[in-house]
Amino acid sequence: MSALLEQLIDALRVLPGVGQKSAQRMAYHVLERGREGGARLATALAEAVEKIGHCQRCRDFSETPVCPTCSSAARDAQTLCVVETPADRLAIEQATGYRGFYFLLQGRLSPLDGIGPHELGLDLLGTRLAEGEVRELIIATNPTVEGEATAHYLAQIARQHAVRPSRPAHGLPLGGELEYVDRGTLSHAFGSRSEVS
Amino acid sequence: MSALLEQLIDALRVLPGVGQKSAQRMAYHVLERGREGGARLATALAEAVEKIGHCQRCRDFSETPVCPTCSSAARDAQTLCVVETPADRLAIEQATGYRGFYFLLQGRLSPLDGIGPHELGLDLLGTRLAEGEVRELIIATNPTVEGEATAHYLAQIARQHAVRPSRPAHGLPLGGELEYVDRGTLSHAFGSRSEVS
Ligand SMILES: [Zn+2]
Ligand SMILES: [Zn+2]
Repeated sequence: MSALLEQLIDALRVLPGVGQKSAQRMAYHVLERGREGGARLATALAEAVEKIGHCQRCRDFSETPVCPTCSSAARDAQTLCVVETPADRLAIEQATGYRGFYFLLQGRLSPLDGIGPHELGLDLLGTRLAEGEVRELIIATNPTVEGEATAHYLAQIARQHAVRPSRPAHGLPLGGELEYVDRGTLSHAFGSRSEVS
Repeated sequence: MSALLEQLIDALRVLPGVGQKSAQRMAYHVLERGREGGARLATALAEAVEKIGHCQRCRDFSETPVCPTCSSAARDAQTLCVVETPADRLAIEQATGYRGFYFLLQGRLSPLDGIGPHELGLDLLGTRLAEGEVRELIIATNPTVEGEATAHYLAQIARQHAVRPSRPAHGLPLGGELEYVDRGTLSHAFGSRSEVS
């Protein structure tokens, strides 16, 4: 096999979920039917890897020191929403009317994987809360064991800075049928029931 | 979202089987945990797209006009094995003792998709057979409807040049359990049964 082709197949495996077989299929596909797209991808990758860093305020990916969102004067500076990933941030921004600021953990507490408060930028978050502008910290970590542990830790930090911690409600998804809802959600929703007026 | 990040997510979709969601996951992964690998992939892609062409003899991917296999003096010039893809070639080379030459169609006859004899390089194959060295053309297209139609067409070309066409045997896979073999294979194997001596 061509050495350059072997090198390409090997390099493609940096992508998540791509093993030997799919790397091979991807390489053949690009060479056979997508050379132009392949060249475009090469440029986009090189540029992204070189120029995209993290926003100094929210830790989201950004090609400028402070991202456009954090630079916006139109946002409510009293609420800060903590999420795990850029995908979570995007989902909230697109689905809700939330227009405060964000803070991205880029992960969740996972001591076994060496991910502690420092890796999640919690020192930066502390500094941010110490500025005194934020009144409410919306903790939107995922409802997983590690996400919950992270949320607990974040609530403590908030209280240390006299900031009110809050969490989005958990419960039955709207329009979902009860029998298809997972047990944990159902149990939580049942336990958190409220009186119908 | 960062414009460069958006550009990267968009460019990743040139890869087969990669939609918006997985392109996003790939981009985040590279930026978060694989920048070095990402830079290596960018280089490998750019080089491959620019420098890998097709071997003039066998049509396999090659960074030289004639690939190492076709340049080899140690191979048997009397047999030529036709396969659809580089992956098929690799599988045969690794699994069998075959040490003749190869010819790659890089596809199979599919008139509806505009893939005819010319797209499969069959004029080049004709020229090759006309040289007179090849005695046997092993037709190793896939046992699909289009692969069979292609095989039929290839056998005609072989006969036109007084070359003997042959096909690898089809039948039950070794070690496979009969009840799990697909119907087509089972039916073929049954119809091609031979007397036990
Ligand atoms: Zn920011
Ligand atoms: Zn060749």
